[in-house]
Amino acid sequence: MQIVADNLTITSTSIANAVQQRDPGPIMDLVRRCEAAGAGMIDINSGPLTRAPAETMAFLVESVQKATSLPLLLDTSNPVAMEAGLMTCRSKAIINGFSLEPDKLTNILPLARRFNTRIIGYLLYPDSNVPTSGTERLTVALELYARFVEAELAPEQLIIDPVVPPLIWPNGHSQAMDVVQVIRTLPDLLDFRVTSIAGISNLTSGPGDAPRKPVFEQCYVAMLAEAGLDMALMNVTHAGTMTAVQACNTLTGTKIFSWI
Amino acid sequence: MQIVADNLTITSTSIANAVQQRDPGPIMDLVRRCEAAGAGMIDINSGPLTRAPAETMAFLVESVQKATSLPLLLDTSNPVAMEAGLMTCRSKAIINGFSLEPDKLTNILPLARRFNTRIIGYLLYPDSNVPTSGTERLTVALELYARFVEAELAPEQLIIDPVVPPLIWPNGHSQAMDVVQVIRTLPDLLDFRVTSIAGISNLTSGPGDAPRKPVFEQCYVAMLAEAGLDMALMNVTHAGTMTAVQACNTLTGTKIFSWI
Repeated sequence: MQIVADNLTITSTSIANAVQQRDPGPIMDLVRRCEAAGAGMIDINSGPLTRAPAETMAFLVESVQKATSLPLLLDTSNPVAMEAGLMTCRSKAIINGFSLEPDKLTNILPLARRFNTRIIGYLLYPDSNVPTSGTERLTVALELYARFVEAELAPEQLIIDPVVPPLIWPNGHSQAMDVVQVIRTLPDLLDFRVTSIAGISNLTSGPGDAPRKPVFEQCYVAMLAEAGLDMALMNVTHAGTMTAVQACNTLTGTKIFSWI
Repeated sequence: MQIVADNLTITSTSIANAVQQRDPGPIMDLVRRCEAAGAGMIDINSGPLTRAPAETMAFLVESVQKATSLPLLLDTSNPVAMEAGLMTCRSKAIINGFSLEPDKLTNILPLARRFNTRIIGYLLYPDSNVPTSGTERLTVALELYARFVEAELAPEQLIIDPVVPPLIWPNGHSQAMDVVQVIRTLPDLLDFRVTSIAGISNLTSGPGDAPRKPVFEQCYVAMLAEAGLDMALMNVTHAGTMTAVQACNTLTGTKIFSWI
């Protein structure tokens, strides 16, 4: 299981200010801290970028690349920003992402073919709603894959995100367990070893008992690891969850983490 | 997932001394601490008891019953001690346990019918060796269940322990993952919702990096919980693992553990 940092986001005040002032310093500092904490990839969440999308995403990518050579994920719904980011990346970035939402199919998905990159597909309905059961998620996965194939992409370019629900949702617990089963089932369903990613921070987002949030995060990441999750998008400053991922990688044989 | 304390064992010096001096105090203290820590059942591990087996097991059971009304597991290979324990228990105890080992089939298994109790069956070969793969464990489970049915016991009396391997074994990691899959598969294999138990402390027994042992234990218990494990036999003084079990019970819907 690879660790993708979700820490670099424009919703953070310090990052928003750095972007506004075109100051790469705070971005570089954050990225260095993420890499030191054990991140294997960096997700650049620029938001929709309604103003100056191309310049802003290019600035973000350039700033990150001054601090690290880790692979990048470009996380925006704005196709202009996405294209600028893909052109600015020194190595191939992952597009994060598309779904059955019509604007994503029309404007984001084709970029994966044009730039020959991997792309994350979210299991969401065309109206952006989240499927409420495992069966619904798998049905959406089949439809998503059909659209992906129609876009003339190769199976190994697809990364599926089943959408981890917050536990505060009314049926959050049962949906969270559905997601584990979806991760386990996807390779059989699509008949190839499809790569999977999950946003671990989603699980405990919103109000909740702060001391217990890490416990839920750690237990859940272990369940996902056993189910075969490939990429954990997470807050890499959560030391307990990072250690849990390393232990899971040892247990599942993905990676050696010293035991004795 | 129910929590069974594995803390009461005659291999502990204080318990061995208490037994020798017929002093119920230390036993009662330990049991009270286990119950306060969240144990839902108490395993009484008396060892084989070569001297005075009936009197000693009766003393242990009486001492425990002075401190708690929690359900008990009687953990001995000595049929005389087992019988004495079963007769001394106020409520029905669980026999821990039998396997394909000939002396267990001959001397322990029939006690479950005689006392109409539940009994734990270990997935071990007749020569006491541990199966080395998931497939081997499932093959043993089929044979074990056949012997169990021959003994005229009802399916709901059976509790299967797939034998958690220590990670220090040469193939410990892969066997540990096999055990998760065995827990998941057993109900389909035997065609009824068979109850399962796993000895969590086994995973990190022996030498190892002390600070990392709890992380492995917590991740592993989460994987087992997701696979459907019913009973975790564990050291209930491991606070982190206890909290993990509670979080897993919330996630899997077994039990409500306050989230907000």
